[in-house]
Amino acid sequence: MAGNSIGKEFTVTTFGESHGKVVGVVVDGCPAGLPLSEGDFQVELDRRIPAEPKIVSARVEKDIVKALSGLFNGLTTGAPIALLVENKETDSSDYEAMKDLPRPGHSDYPARIKYGGLNDYRGGGRFSGRVTVALIMAGTIAKKTLSHFDVDVLAYTSAIGQVKLDKKFSADEIRKNHHSTATRCPDLSCSKKMEEAIVNAKKDGDSLGGIVECLVLGLPVGVGEPLFDSLDADLAKSIFAVPAVKGVEFGMGFEAAQIKGSQNNDAFQIEKGQVVSLTDNAGGVLGGLSSGMPIMMRVAIKPTPSIAKEQKTVNLKKMENAALTVKGRHDPCVVPKAVPAIEAAIAITLADHMIRAGFIPRVLKRL
Amino acid sequence: MAGNSIGKEFTVTTFGESHGKVVGVVVDGCPAGLPLSEGDFQVELDRRIPAEPKIVSARVEKDIVKALSGLFNGLTTGAPIALLVENKETDSSDYEAMKDLPRPGHSDYPARIKYGGLNDYRGGGRFSGRVTVALIMAGTIAKKTLSHFDVDVLAYTSAIGQVKLDKKFSADEIRKNHHSTATRCPDLSCSKKMEEAIVNAKKDGDSLGGIVECLVLGLPVGVGEPLFDSLDADLAKSIFAVPAVKGVEFGMGFEAAQIKGSQNNDAFQIEKGQVVSLTDNAGGVLGGLSSGMPIMMRVAIKPTPSIAKEQKTVNLKKMENAALTVKGRHDPCVVPKAVPAIEAAIAITLADHMIRAGFIPRVLKRL
Amino acid sequence: MAGNSIGKEFTVTTFGESHGKVVGVVVDGCPAGLPLSEGDFQVELDRRIPAEPKIVSARVEKDIVKALSGLFNGLTTGAPIALLVENKETDSSDYEAMKDLPRPGHSDYPARIKYGGLNDYRGGGRFSGRVTVALIMAGTIAKKTLSHFDVDVLAYTSAIGQVKLDKKFSADEIRKNHHSTATRCPDLSCSKKMEEAIVNAKKDGDSLGGIVECLVLGLPVGVGEPLFDSLDADLAKSIFAVPAVKGVEFGMGFEAAQIKGSQNNDAFQIEKGQVVSLTDNAGGVLGGLSSGMPIMMRVAIKPTPSIAKEQKTVNLKKMENAALTVKGRHDPCVVPKAVPAIEAAIAITLADHMIRAGFIPRVLKRL
Amino acid sequence: MAGNSIGKEFTVTTFGESHGKVVGVVVDGCPAGLPLSEGDFQVELDRRIPAEPKIVSARVEKDIVKALSGLFNGLTTGAPIALLVENKETDSSDYEAMKDLPRPGHSDYPARIKYGGLNDYRGGGRFSGRVTVALIMAGTIAKKTLSHFDVDVLAYTSAIGQVKLDKKFSADEIRKNHHSTATRCPDLSCSKKMEEAIVNAKKDGDSLGGIVECLVLGLPVGVGEPLFDSLDADLAKSIFAVPAVKGVEFGMGFEAAQIKGSQNNDAFQIEKGQVVSLTDNAGGVLGGLSSGMPIMMRVAIKPTPSIAKEQKTVNLKKMENAALTVKGRHDPCVVPKAVPAIEAAIAITLADHMIRAGFIPRVLKRL
Repeated sequence: MAGNSIGKEFTVTTFGESHGKVVGVVVDGCPAGLPLSEGDFQVELDRRIPAEPKIVSARVEKDIVKALSGLFNGLTTGAPIALLVENKETDSSDYEAMKDLPRPGHSDYPARIKYGGLNDYRGGGRFSGRVTVALIMAGTIAKKTLSHFDVDVLAYTSAIGQVKLDKKFSADEIRKNHHSTATRCPDLSCSKKMEEAIVNAKKDGDSLGGIVECLVLGLPVGVGEPLFDSLDADLAKSIFAVPAVKGVEFGMGFEAAQIKGSQNNDAFQIEKGQVVSLTDNAGGVLGGLSSGMPIMMRVAIKPTPSIAKEQKTVNLKKMENAALTVKGRHDPCVVPKAVPAIEAAIAITLADHMIRAGFIPRVLKRL
Repeated sequence: MAGNSIGKEFTVTTFGESHGKVVGVVVDGCPAGLPLSEGDFQVELDRRIPAEPKIVSARVEKDIVKALSGLFNGLTTGAPIALLVENKETDSSDYEAMKDLPRPGHSDYPARIKYGGLNDYRGGGRFSGRVTVALIMAGTIAKKTLSHFDVDVLAYTSAIGQVKLDKKFSADEIRKNHHSTATRCPDLSCSKKMEEAIVNAKKDGDSLGGIVECLVLGLPVGVGEPLFDSLDADLAKSIFAVPAVKGVEFGMGFEAAQIKGSQNNDAFQIEKGQVVSLTDNAGGVLGGLSSGMPIMMRVAIKPTPSIAKEQKTVNLKKMENAALTVKGRHDPCVVPKAVPAIEAAIAITLADHMIRAGFIPRVLKRL
Repeated sequence: MAGNSIGKEFTVTTFGESHGKVVGVVVDGCPAGLPLSEGDFQVELDRRIPAEPKIVSARVEKDIVKALSGLFNGLTTGAPIALLVENKETDSSDYEAMKDLPRPGHSDYPARIKYGGLNDYRGGGRFSGRVTVALIMAGTIAKKTLSHFDVDVLAYTSAIGQVKLDKKFSADEIRKNHHSTATRCPDLSCSKKMEEAIVNAKKDGDSLGGIVECLVLGLPVGVGEPLFDSLDADLAKSIFAVPAVKGVEFGMGFEAAQIKGSQNNDAFQIEKGQVVSLTDNAGGVLGGLSSGMPIMMRVAIKPTPSIAKEQKTVNLKKMENAALTVKGRHDPCVVPKAVPAIEAAIAITLADHMIRAGFIPRVLKRL
Repeated sequence: MAGNSIGKEFTVTTFGESHGKVVGVVVDGCPAGLPLSEGDFQVELDRRIPAEPKIVSARVEKDIVKALSGLFNGLTTGAPIALLVENKETDSSDYEAMKDLPRPGHSDYPARIKYGGLNDYRGGGRFSGRVTVALIMAGTIAKKTLSHFDVDVLAYTSAIGQVKLDKKFSADEIRKNHHSTATRCPDLSCSKKMEEAIVNAKKDGDSLGGIVECLVLGLPVGVGEPLFDSLDADLAKSIFAVPAVKGVEFGMGFEAAQIKGSQNNDAFQIEKGQVVSLTDNAGGVLGGLSSGMPIMMRVAIKPTPSIAKEQKTVNLKKMENAALTVKGRHDPCVVPKAVPAIEAAIAITLADHMIRAGFIPRVLKRL
């Protein structure tokens, strides 16, 4: 039990269900002196909902953040920060009918067994993608803290189904575009193709997954606490907490398994008095520690399990085979929404680790 | 700091360096009443060293486990179990010369910065693959605990460099063969090809990586504590603590990103009164909970960074470019050694989670 | 940082400040299937405010609990439970004037230094006794969980200043009376004397402290996880989190230091087939484990530091000596309010430890 | 389960039993760059055994510390430090006979129930005072780390049974004498009386307890992480992990409950440009934070439960009443041995909290 907190020094505790009253989060351990207002959260939360209605669920909440504690005169105080978003657009009518029919690919079945049938199953309850709202609120604080130390977290969509981004983009280009396209892919024309693929899948009553790529810039050398709290280990852990994630790799990742050491090793050299490596096949992590090079990750997102097509399932009450056509409002592809959630997961882990490694003090400025 | 422990209820704390006196581990939270002897550890540790000398480092330690606490009359007592293996075959002569020349692909550079040059750099020190001995000792206890509940953890090599296992093997076949081949690949002829690839890489002064596949059988439904302590999240975390791991995926993993929901979803059906799914594209994890189907993971291992070829690096003392030819004794491919380490990491996480979810009691038998 | 959570399996995270918007708490790890409604919290919170206005602060909040998550159809679901109480009766006018004048006996001075002057100082902010509201909300859940297993936590006032309870009361008598007197002392006439003492102190512009005694009945043998998570160690820790606590002792406590082993040891004997001890000088804890006998604790509460008398302090801005007359609304004695807070602290620790020791399952009933 | 570790950033994990092979500890999170040798531990361990054989157990081990990891060139490296002491003087013959007869006042009974009779009962096993050797080893590292920042931890005996120290001693006087007397009481004549009391109790087949007073000097303002990880809360927790502790109080402690606010509050004033308080009734802790004044604690130690007098107990196998005369070698009074253990517990908690509050960096010096 008790798995809803993460982080040792920057500790994030989330709560709330898809069709409950709220989704919320408590952030404990944020340094005092960080300028923070409710508006900061709004910017990040708004990014969760692509402007293009054709590719998202019909459930569009205008999420308004309430900051309940830990702020005083526009600054963080060092006390825990509690944040809430109310759920307004809940329509649970479809779920009652599906109650005994676990949706393939969803947590419905194991959650029912684990919690003895007592869990709030409406809209996936605690397992809904909606709970990433809490992650994003905490991530907003983490990102602001990191930006105080010039650390920047950038995630973007690099593939939706078979449509893949085949160009490399600079950090500046990504930063400029990754929130402006509906898919969060920094290439406008590629994004259009991705949109089409999503629209087509939706027409078929089907869904798509994709790849999110992540970049962390400005991280100092030596962040991470091996063995077990290695930087890559803790980043992977927090990213897997984002629903629908099925794989995480760093740098060359699975490709590294196929090449030779002489090809994979990143040679060091001195550049402007700094130690750098020309390549970054390691993805910025060596021995569980940040190397000073950009952190580079790729995250696999599975296609949304809720599809309109009829699927085979079982009736858990009658214990017999059954057919299911999922109703309710669902995203045909959660990749765009996953982008800010993954950024948030990364930022939360980095803030925690930078505090642990001594790079972030407890008070950012003193009155 | 303080990242050398993992697990909330079955807590593993490791210590020791490659060229220090020992590698050791403390396991706290093991249920009382588990039959356990020093011989149990030996079996697992011996599996770390393939019998084929051509593909391993010239440093071959016959590791003898000493159990220091937590056992009484051949059973665990519920008290912490401390285990040690002495380092005997240490030859640190080569490392003094390389002290200021960080090996590309290794932790040398970030570790030196993080610890102010004070870390024991000999043989990679705390970052050496040798520390997986501690993981394997703890994993032995975890695996015995799991087997008491008929949970079985199986890992095996499925690729070395370009040589890939292209057949599917049953759990029984894997169980039979995966420790008997030098590469830990269950297909004898494929294993031979892998050996050749390793020998060839070694001849070239180069190295290879590969893929380890993992299977968990018998896990009950509902193991995992979402959100943050999701089963996949915590498995990924512990696996990334194994040196050289660069990627982890569950079930279809990165392939899931390319297919449709209707293809990826695992349909449920009743079979002999049980809920099962015919496919297991989810890899046995839904919403961060075990689904009752086999857990299936793939782990990417990078090629050993220590290679005999000359590489570019920097002299950190003089802050100038330098050339490095790594000496010392190194494995041309760590994949075979990673197999038992990954099994151990998985078993440790599962033991912890089965206790947390209430499947394993505190006392296995009462006198 | 990050000290606002407690408990490994039943994890309580509190937030909120005295003069902020809310006081709140998240309880993670509560078993599924516990009947729980907002009304349950109300009963406990109402106990915080004695009905006798003469002995309490003029700030009387009618605290209304909002349950935001983790409940479904009147039962806990296993998901985290978030609870809020709004602060309505805040009047911060007096605090601006005292901003640079730390109140003797209060956290004002060290909090200002620690948080660089950024902490919300109004009404003591995060350090106010008001935050025990969060503790009591979490404690309500813990107590209901414990009562499901027939474990009962009883605290009562045994001394206020020089007025001491000199009779022994049975658990039933305590249960009957300890909430009905204004002081939470189970002896009506003694309680009257305590009230008088408080009223007199208040008249003098002064304040009083006292002793709270605590009793835990029904706890099974073997709760506690030595060494460090010994039952007494963790009970002491959570009790010291209640503001104004200055001492904790078990059983004979400090008196045990003065007597002999032969006097202090509790002899075992068989009674109705059970192992019991006639005396309970150990206070129900042996070697950090519950012994099966009642847990008995005594807790020292200091006199309220906020007093109307003029006191010597310093002006932190001018760094010069100053005189201070504390304004604002203050309790002349916090002992009665501390009683339910201490019960809550104890219950939270016991719920956590009973889960850890395997006495409380993850699901209390299955649908 | 898993209660054998303490500390979030300076994490101490202990293992070992009284009559097992070793007592040991792993310290994770010690800053790199601390000069440390095996001799440092010896000094502290030797202090555990008073030079006066009349007042201690006949079991006198010359404990020799082996440092197994985490040290390199005489300095800590930032890696976990494992330390061992072998048990040599074990004579378990007396314990077999007492196996089914739980000693009154000991953990025997609840431990047997908790661990299903599987725990190592010889000499109290994991619950023996002997395990404080592990605490003292970890405490040695903590104290050296603290002394690097001019923080000094001093404990001494202030009462044994009815014999009480009635003079106040300066820190310098305590420092000079508290290890030189057999009782660890800084007053030589008072110590003699305490020795006599112990010798007399021993003659009677009885035992004594006492009071240990503790002083922490040099702690900066603002150490502690309220609410739950308040400095006093965590100090109390670690002190209660020392066997035989039955009470902990800060400053005026239980006496504060009897006096008025105007008497108890410590008035602030400016002295040499610093904020100080003339009195320290708070014992150096305000609102769970260090105030900059000396930390002052009093700890109640119960009389040794193992006494030579015949006692009533039960036979757990036959479930009938029984008489017990405890054999084996026992201290007639554990107070002198508790002194260094309590110092160690305090130092461990302070080192952890000073790291958490940002006062201690991860690297003390860089090469």
